[in-house]
Amino acid sequence: MAEPVRFTLHATDGRARTGTIETPRGAIRTPAFMPVGTAATVKGMKPADVRASGADILLGNTYHLMLRPGAERVARLGGLHRFMDWPHPILTDSGGYQVMSLGDLVKVSEEGVAFRSHLDGARHFVTPERAIEIQRLLGADIVMAFDECTKHPATHEQAARSMHLSMRWAERSRAAFLEQEREGAALFGIQQGALFEDLRCESAARLIDIGFEGYAIGGLAVGEGQQAMFDVLDYAPEQLPADRPRYLMGVGKPADILGAVLRGVDMFDCVLPTRSGRTAQAFTRAGTLNLRNARFAEDMGPLDERCPCPVCARFSRAYLHHLFKAGEMLGPMLLTEHNLWHYQEMMAGLRRAIHEGRAQAFARGWIDQAGD
Amino acid sequence: MAEPVRFTLHATDGRARTGTIETPRGAIRTPAFMPVGTAATVKGMKPADVRASGADILLGNTYHLMLRPGAERVARLGGLHRFMDWPHPILTDSGGYQVMSLGDLVKVSEEGVAFRSHLDGARHFVTPERAIEIQRLLGADIVMAFDECTKHPATHEQAARSMHLSMRWAERSRAAFLEQEREGAALFGIQQGALFEDLRCESAARLIDIGFEGYAIGGLAVGEGQQAMFDVLDYAPEQLPADRPRYLMGVGKPADILGAVLRGVDMFDCVLPTRSGRTAQAFTRAGTLNLRNARFAEDMGPLDERCPCPVCARFSRAYLHHLFKAGEMLGPMLLTEHNLWHYQEMMAGLRRAIHEGRAQAFARGWIDQAGD
Repeated sequence: MAEPVRFTLHATDGRARTGTIETPRGAIRTPAFMPVGTAATVKGMKPADVRASGADILLGNTYHLMLRPGAERVARLGGLHRFMDWPHPILTDSGGYQVMSLGDLVKVSEEGVAFRSHLDGARHFVTPERAIEIQRLLGADIVMAFDECTKHPATHEQAARSMHLSMRWAERSRAAFLEQEREGAALFGIQQGALFEDLRCESAARLIDIGFEGYAIGGLAVGEGQQAMFDVLDYAPEQLPADRPRYLMGVGKPADILGAVLRGVDMFDCVLPTRSGRTAQAFTRAGTLNLRNARFAEDMGPLDERCPCPVCARFSRAYLHHLFKAGEMLGPMLLTEHNLWHYQEMMAGLRRAIHEGRAQAFARGWIDQAGD
Repeated sequence: MAEPVRFTLHATDGRARTGTIETPRGAIRTPAFMPVGTAATVKGMKPADVRASGADILLGNTYHLMLRPGAERVARLGGLHRFMDWPHPILTDSGGYQVMSLGDLVKVSEEGVAFRSHLDGARHFVTPERAIEIQRLLGADIVMAFDECTKHPATHEQAARSMHLSMRWAERSRAAFLEQEREGAALFGIQQGALFEDLRCESAARLIDIGFEGYAIGGLAVGEGQQAMFDVLDYAPEQLPADRPRYLMGVGKPADILGAVLRGVDMFDCVLPTRSGRTAQAFTRAGTLNLRNARFAEDMGPLDERCPCPVCARFSRAYLHHLFKAGEMLGPMLLTEHNLWHYQEMMAGLRRAIHEGRAQAFARGWIDQAGD
């Protein structure tokens, strides 16, 4: 019988924490950045190269995978890990966030969410029970409760009503998860409450009452801006149990992650490093670069002189500029790889800094050089 | 001082030959297949993965590189090898073939070829001397003489006139190459003469009289069909020196290559494995597959059970089908890699078979299973 998921804290520095989430498929070092593998692939990356960048865990998108290739099909093919050749941990979102973003194609009720596929217009209905079932079929190691991501901006009344619905769905998600009797998998609850401290507090209490292996902070990075997000993160992580991982969903820019880690967050996911890689945006320790810019046409230097990634070791800015100008696939491939290394190197640096009691200085130094 | 390029024959089997072309940047095992790296990249492949597939040498396209990023720019950036991180041998075509295919945008004279760039309409004029200069700037290990690829079909008179022009250009190419005094680089002449044995014979004699480190057979694979091509290859290779490599340009399908090797050809290049990889066509020992076909949606097998490539070791047909249906970059990436391995494995098998005196049986067995 597989071991359950277990979180161990190794060191704290102020509110920043570093630790390990042990899962049957391997350890996740926290603070952790999870690359996004929307459709059973981190776009433009072979899984072994994702692993080499330092990723301990990937995020898969339930919404996309349920539509194509389909959860039952993935299950028949041996599960998502085998399907995409990623034998390490996978976290799947519950699909709620992406379903809600379909706008007019969505109808939310107490029972669940009715929507039409963006691919073929087919009707679907997802309940908390079905969301948990889909994530079981995919074989996720970390399963997310089904929630409604409260729209921004929201009044206190709107945020309360939405949060209360998410909490009822969290309870149903937990019941469905426990019925599966899945050894070695974890279910995370998702705190909502928009920008209201009292609602965040109530949501956290409700989730703790239900009991989860980890807790996500949802409903942020939806347009409120970094300062408003940090204002929530000044109290939200501490409303959640200290002995469980805290996951800030969909975040973010390097400076967002640094600020959130200093406020007690352990896990992150974001499409930014991969999406930026496809649009010629490079993250470096000296700021971001647009590789399409003509000033790189004869720049023989690497993207980032201090980056240990295989791209910086082998290729010049001039070459990457050429690849993007020529529309060559290798441009997005190489820049995605570099950006993922950049993120993982930042996370590794953060973990060391927390161990050594210099997390604040590390974050300040990084932002001073790379920008916010 | 670098060693000159040297060709050593190790074994023959009928007219089939196996040997090694030694260059200062490494050895090329023949019969050799050269992947095409048009714009300083084999599309969708990291150079280390191209190398791992068994490629000893790449082909670069002079026409594309002279337009973007530009030959002088590549030279300022340290040459093509460094630019694209391919430290092994590179052969560059002379640009003639691709310039001619521009159709109405081209004007051929005794002096050279005037044309407009397909990228921006800018006027260019390439002479044999400039073609050799461009290839020097790129840093090619094997340089091709500038020629006119005779259009198909051609009358005897048209083919003769075109071939005679190419032979005058071959002489100018040789003179320009010798003036460079490039140690360690080789210049190959290109035989023309369309489908006419007497013209092929005359062209070969003319080239031998000028003297080259290797000889290409040009003007084939331009629409004449496999049988007509084989009819020419029944005599053309033997018109060329036995102690120099023979290169059949732009060929081809696996069955074309097998037939040409049996007729005494040593080197090949073709976009087929890479282009097919981007259009979901897989080469396998049991025939070609279209990965978009719905019958692969739940096929857990590898592309080719007998293929030792990293793609077949890790990914199912079902996964590749999914990637192509979802429009994911990883589909073309993985299928290109597999197809390149397929070609290189065939070449390696051919080389062994020639050593062991069973080249005919190898070719027949391969075609019986994989189709022609």
